[in-house]
Amino acid sequence: MKESLYIIKIGGNIIDDELKLSSFLESFAAIEGKKILVHGGGKLATQLATQLGVEQTILDGRRITDKETLKIVTMVYAGFINKNIVAALQANGCNALGLTGADGNTMLAHKRNHPSIDYGFAGDVDEVDIDLLSGLLDMNVSIVFAPITHNKMGQLLNTNADTIAQELATGLSHRYHVTLIYSFEKSGVLLDANNDETVIKMINPASYARLKGDKKIFAGMIPKLDNDFSALSGGVSKVIVGKAENLNGLINGGSGTTIVNE
Amino acid sequence: MKESLYIIKIGGNIIDDELKLSSFLESFAAIEGKKILVHGGGKLATQLATQLGVEQTILDGRRITDKETLKIVTMVYAGFINKNIVAALQANGCNALGLTGADGNTMLAHKRNHPSIDYGFAGDVDEVDIDLLSGLLDMNVSIVFAPITHNKMGQLLNTNADTIAQELATGLSHRYHVTLIYSFEKSGVLLDANNDETVIKMINPASYARLKGDKKIFAGMIPKLDNDFSALSGGVSKVIVGKAENLNGLINGGSGTTIVNE
Repeated sequence: MKESLYIIKIGGNIIDDELKLSSFLESFAAIEGKKILVHGGGKLATQLATQLGVEQTILDGRRITDKETLKIVTMVYAGFINKNIVAALQANGCNALGLTGADGNTMLAHKRNHPSIDYGFAGDVDEVDIDLLSGLLDMNVSIVFAPITHNKMGQLLNTNADTIAQELATGLSHRYHVTLIYSFEKSGVLLDANNDETVIKMINPASYARLKGDKKIFAGMIPKLDNDFSALSGGVSKVIVGKAENLNGLINGGSGTTIVNE
Repeated sequence: MKESLYIIKIGGNIIDDELKLSSFLESFAAIEGKKILVHGGGKLATQLATQLGVEQTILDGRRITDKETLKIVTMVYAGFINKNIVAALQANGCNALGLTGADGNTMLAHKRNHPSIDYGFAGDVDEVDIDLLSGLLDMNVSIVFAPITHNKMGQLLNTNADTIAQELATGLSHRYHVTLIYSFEKSGVLLDANNDETVIKMINPASYARLKGDKKIFAGMIPKLDNDFSALSGGVSKVIVGKAENLNGLINGGSGTTIVNE
């Protein structure tokens, strides 16, 4: 039987809130067994860009990563955020180690190729090398992954943290029984987007089809859920979405939405 | 017989020079066998501090690391410099992985305790954990170490890169036959500080005593050489000092000063 591995993604709503982050990291450290934390960016990169007078362009909700912006996100994501999370986990007795995709060539990507928009140094993932990741996990090291990859030609690339979490999850599902947890600002997938009490406890392909047919699911959730189902098709055992503040509940089923493939 | 390990420290004179750095990394990647690169900071941290209006205080040649300066050095050293070096090594076919002392708890330190000067978040090293480092080296991963450590209570600490190289070298000498290479702006230890042609090829304790007695060694080199001899006493096989531009020469004895304990 495969050993369990938790892969948990946190975003800006946790990273930007010192108290929430500290309490989340305490819960993360307390998870028994193998675990990976994938973090996004948060406001700090935007703040630093403003301070440095580097203009930020957002197109279709995505930041255009020019050379100066890449420098900023490398400093903030791989440096400041990643290393402070690692140090905080160490203080909680969790032996953590921070990585980008360049480290150990763990995640190879290419510069995004788009017919009309030049996203700059934005990376789309090609390949995950699970040997080194498994080697670290098997030494009881917990991995903290920053949303930066590389192209093996010396170029770092800014990469979406949700994508990184999904690529790690499907790649490592060959060796582990993977639970992928996406934390976000809501308590789960909601029947009423404005009412956090309407969490759908469980979604499988049949109920997902019904919910979509009945237009019960907020349109913004559909691409996310489609990704979750493709992670499950890729070998991930379970996807859970909900609030990072309820990490224990997400893991033991008391909170959030669990998405399964059957 | 113990396997060989090269630990090579580079400073600002290489890091700040794009061409020199790129050529050095090519030579580093070409070294066969196990290797660790320790990098210092360079001008970028000071430039960023100026841009952000963070005043820098230097006392006795050492930067005082206040909270904002720690943030800057964490971003620049552990983020920008470390990850760009790792990506460049990957492009040269060297499977590199970047670490700070917080990562994997590889280097534990405490906030410097000084009777009269508060150095801020400056770390003095207490302990190196060689198990994870050896584990990575044994997976044929080359380590790129940034000059940041932690105190295992959640605090990152700015730490001298020469000290980090020396601590790694003595710690790992229990398991490897370690050659420690300090690169700097001169071709080696010079008889005439202003003439790069007067490199002393080899120094051992007896010749060092004579050179000091005859006042043939530039005073600024004495603390460095004392540290080199203490690394040798700590188990390091050989210390070499010289120009990073001549890395191959430093390794094969054609360039630089070799310091040995016999």
